Amino acid sequence: MTTIAFIGLGIMGSPMAVHLQDAGHDVIGYNLHPDKTQPLVDAGGTAAASVADAVRDAQVVAVMVPDSPDVQDVLLGEDGVFANAKEGTLVIDFSSIRPDVTVELAKAAQAKGFRLLDAPVSGGEAGARNAALSIMVGGSAEDFAEAKPLFDAVGKTIVHVGGNGAGQTVKAANQLIVAANIQALAEAVVFLEAYGADLGPALDVLGGGLAGSKVLDQKRDNMAKKSFEPGFRIDLHHKDLGIVTSAAREAGVVVPLGGLVAQLMASARANGDGGLDHSALLRGVQRLSGQTP
Amino acid sequence: MTTIAFIGLGIMGSPMAVHLQDAGHDVIGYNLHPDKTQPLVDAGGTAAASVADAVRDAQVVAVMVPDSPDVQDVLLGEDGVFANAKEGTLVIDFSSIRPDVTVELAKAAQAKGFRLLDAPVSGGEAGARNAALSIMVGGSAEDFAEAKPLFDAVGKTIVHVGGNGAGQTVKAANQLIVAANIQALAEAVVFLEAYGADLGPALDVLGGGLAGSKVLDQKRDNMAKKSFEPGFRIDLHHKDLGIVTSAAREAGVVVPLGGLVAQLMASARANGDGGLDHSALLRGVQRLSGQTP
Amino acid sequence: MTTIAFIGLGIMGSPMAVHLQDAGHDVIGYNLHPDKTQPLVDAGGTAAASVADAVRDAQVVAVMVPDSPDVQDVLLGEDGVFANAKEGTLVIDFSSIRPDVTVELAKAAQAKGFRLLDAPVSGGEAGARNAALSIMVGGSAEDFAEAKPLFDAVGKTIVHVGGNGAGQTVKAANQLIVAANIQALAEAVVFLEAYGADLGPALDVLGGGLAGSKVLDQKRDNMAKKSFEPGFRIDLHHKDLGIVTSAAREAGVVVPLGGLVAQLMASARANGDGGLDHSALLRGVQRLSGQTP
Amino acid sequence: MTTIAFIGLGIMGSPMAVHLQDAGHDVIGYNLHPDKTQPLVDAGGTAAASVADAVRDAQVVAVMVPDSPDVQDVLLGEDGVFANAKEGTLVIDFSSIRPDVTVELAKAAQAKGFRLLDAPVSGGEAGARNAALSIMVGGSAEDFAEAKPLFDAVGKTIVHVGGNGAGQTVKAANQLIVAANIQALAEAVVFLEAYGADLGPALDVLGGGLAGSKVLDQKRDNMAKKSFEPGFRIDLHHKDLGIVTSAAREAGVVVPLGGLVAQLMASARANGDGGLDHSALLRGVQRLSGQTP
Repeated sequence: MTTIAFIGLGIMGSPMAVHLQDAGHDVIGYNLHPDKTQPLVDAGGTAAASVADAVRDAQVVAVMVPDSPDVQDVLLGEDGVFANAKEGTLVIDFSSIRPDVTVELAKAAQAKGFRLLDAPVSGGEAGARNAALSIMVGGSAEDFAEAKPLFDAVGKTIVHVGGNGAGQTVKAANQLIVAANIQALAEAVVFLEAYGADLGPALDVLGGGLAGSKVLDQKRDNMAKKSFEPGFRIDLHHKDLGIVTSAAREAGVVVPLGGLVAQLMASARANGDGGLDHSALLRGVQRLSGQTP
Repeated sequence: MTTIAFIGLGIMGSPMAVHLQDAGHDVIGYNLHPDKTQPLVDAGGTAAASVADAVRDAQVVAVMVPDSPDVQDVLLGEDGVFANAKEGTLVIDFSSIRPDVTVELAKAAQAKGFRLLDAPVSGGEAGARNAALSIMVGGSAEDFAEAKPLFDAVGKTIVHVGGNGAGQTVKAANQLIVAANIQALAEAVVFLEAYGADLGPALDVLGGGLAGSKVLDQKRDNMAKKSFEPGFRIDLHHKDLGIVTSAAREAGVVVPLGGLVAQLMASARANGDGGLDHSALLRGVQRLSGQTP
Repeated sequence: MTTIAFIGLGIMGSPMAVHLQDAGHDVIGYNLHPDKTQPLVDAGGTAAASVADAVRDAQVVAVMVPDSPDVQDVLLGEDGVFANAKEGTLVIDFSSIRPDVTVELAKAAQAKGFRLLDAPVSGGEAGARNAALSIMVGGSAEDFAEAKPLFDAVGKTIVHVGGNGAGQTVKAANQLIVAANIQALAEAVVFLEAYGADLGPALDVLGGGLAGSKVLDQKRDNMAKKSFEPGFRIDLHHKDLGIVTSAAREAGVVVPLGGLVAQLMASARANGDGGLDHSALLRGVQRLSGQTP
Repeated sequence: MTTIAFIGLGIMGSPMAVHLQDAGHDVIGYNLHPDKTQPLVDAGGTAAASVADAVRDAQVVAVMVPDSPDVQDVLLGEDGVFANAKEGTLVIDFSSIRPDVTVELAKAAQAKGFRLLDAPVSGGEAGARNAALSIMVGGSAEDFAEAKPLFDAVGKTIVHVGGNGAGQTVKAANQLIVAANIQALAEAVVFLEAYGADLGPALDVLGGGLAGSKVLDQKRDNMAKKSFEPGFRIDLHHKDLGIVTSAAREAGVVVPLGGLVAQLMASARANGDGGLDHSALLRGVQRLSGQTP
């Protein structure tokens, strides 16, 4: 049994914290809007009134907040982890942020006697609810081994992918691939419909060959029905592609497809589709092709 | 038992003809270079000296040749199918050609009392050898039903996707998706390496999430090892992307990702990689990023 | 004084034929729709009832028709130039067609004892009316010298750019540059407006620096007023970008910007803007950015 | 006569400061590397040992430093302008930085009783030496009027383009257009050469038509000779395109061409061409097309 502070109990963080509590750990949760702590409390966990209160006695601090500055606040702030947790505490950052920010935070952690794992996830809300997340972990092998039982409580595919920052890098790569695969499928669907192919059987055969993918399996119904309930929202994927293009640029890696799909994702958002599932990239292909989505 | 003329016994056609013979049919093969008929003859089939000789007594004519003009020659030429086969013969065109050419050939077939199915395949040389091709069939439901047992002898995923031309459309969509998925994976791999992530575990976790795809499963080793034995050659995929972009243009469908990946495939070819597997798109990302492939 | 057959008296061809007549030549015009011959007749020229009639006694044959197949018909058809004109006649093709088709036609011309210049023009309807066209001429230096006085009667910038096909190549290059320059300006305009810059002064200063161009000078008013009277129509530029991308592909030249702007031009057309001036690419940037054009 | 502090005496700033001194003003220069102050001193100006010393008695402070953080240091630092200059001083920032940073700095200036103009320039080193810069100015009309005589001493095309930030926006738009126009010209040149057109005459006729541009006039020789002495360096244009894409993204403006050319500029840099003139984008087209630059 581990005492875990869990900072950030949103759509993703809340079920993750509950899974950890259910796995026999002692979870103390904190969220900006305190009403979000209820599911954790119902599961036997504790609600804290501040980050400082949550982390004071924790052996492990888990963080799941929206963006780079939020993580910086949680770790570096006056009320934050480094100022209030016990020296040596292991910090697991599940948030998806810029790899270079992660690397800096890891250095700051080390300088203050803390240990950090970057552990961004994929799998979305459903993955969080079903403890079926994929987790890409950057940091030392020892810290990874120590955290592994906790990862097992919330995820299914858990991989140590390198030193600090590597987790975020893999997450960025994931978002690049997913966005491009969705856009390619969307172009294919509009093309197939334009030529009058039977979409159902066509996608069956595409899925059975080298064009097959998780994206095709999971997004084909959205595209066929033009129904784009999230799922993973355009707004979030847009944020992530900003990470991809700036991190690639930083590293001197040229990503022409990544750059173009980032523009198309931005276009989806500019057209008011930010709250829809990312498979709504289809609507952009329709607009480009003169169709009313 | 059906008497089948098989025109075009190349890397794909030869094992397909043998599978049909092995399934108990009587296959008469023709190939421009007659020495390619040997495997069929070894399997108990017959070699014909001309298209005319091959098709004269056939109940079904199968065609597997490289490009649109080749199919036009085989069907419309003096020595060709329409001039020499029996009226009513079912023609199955396994070649990958332009949808609009297929539609015209289907009209010509009907005008002369023949029936046509467009039945392009995916799965490559291995798929042909293992009778595991995906086959996307356009044409009438009756003709499809009649040909189904023959398709079963050479393929695994066999789908009737619409009227004449629909098969070619689905094949084009397949090549669009596959090219984009490969290019996205290639950009991701170069990005991951630049940031020092452990490529093996990174691709494991990517493959386990929404970024997972047949392309990732089948091409990751090529990319990790920078070894690009074909497989499916850049030259052929380049040809197919020409079909994709011109067919999309014809239909007023805008395919920005398709258009860009067609340029990148052309670049691979211009850089002398035409004979490599299409996963060699990775080398283009390396070149763009200032790395020597 | 030269006897000139002029085939194709449309928006461009009609004023060109009149200029040649006005310059003291004897012009015999032919057009599919015979009523278009009136301006030439009013200027003192002659109307012919067929291509054959027009070219029979001509020393020079000028052609100005829409696309590659039209030129092929006019030159190679039974009623056409090669079958009916006097051996040795100089053929000047002002049409904008594929370079490779031009090269083949030049060979056919030579085989039959004719001489061909490819001489596509830019400058649009106004250029044709004001005898101010730019003419890019491919063919032999001797033929160019012989035709020069005729070019002077219809154009202002007249340049011999190489052997047969070079004229078409330069025209294609022109359409690539113009389309990209328009699209870049369109993106800049929407960007400037979004940030509240004063568009008039902003375009003044841009025009005074390295961003200055004929496109900026001539299209800025259209873009500022969102008024897109042609000018040069999207439909035609779309046709020309098809020539650009296929000719580049044929030559193994990779044109990423050309490929992308071809998709965006196709999108303009698919959105019903085909009849507008090509500066209406601005409307596409607006649509991508969630604005109603 | 105005007392002017000039912060940043690099390739651009040094001749600008000298021109101001030559115009009869009293210029006190500061540069990180003090040896760069010599030309100003030779012209009769003064060298200061710190920003604080330079600005203490100035009526106007001019700034010309590389990037956003440098401007922030100069204005906001302890040794900086706001801490040491007299209240009410007019600050003219000639640097090219992010529009949003400029807007924030303008607010900070106002809060502390200063006035700010953003006044980025184009025209490069030659423009600075010849007092022929284009200057795009954002800020109040009154401040612009006050600064106009100073702008006249260093520039030729001087335009007030809107409120604070508008100058930077126009500069960003300039860099977007210039990069795209160069890339389009580069693709055209490689295309023309591949088809054997005579490049000189071809560029003449292109320059005489709608494809004509300052880029074509000024960069054609570089491209024809494959000689890329800067000029304006790839490294700097790369920096500027980072501003363009992030500022467009911030504003919800979709710039597909801008995004793609940013990738191609990054590729030039990754291939070691960062120190060459931006017309070296041609080398990227050559590499994509399998040619050795």
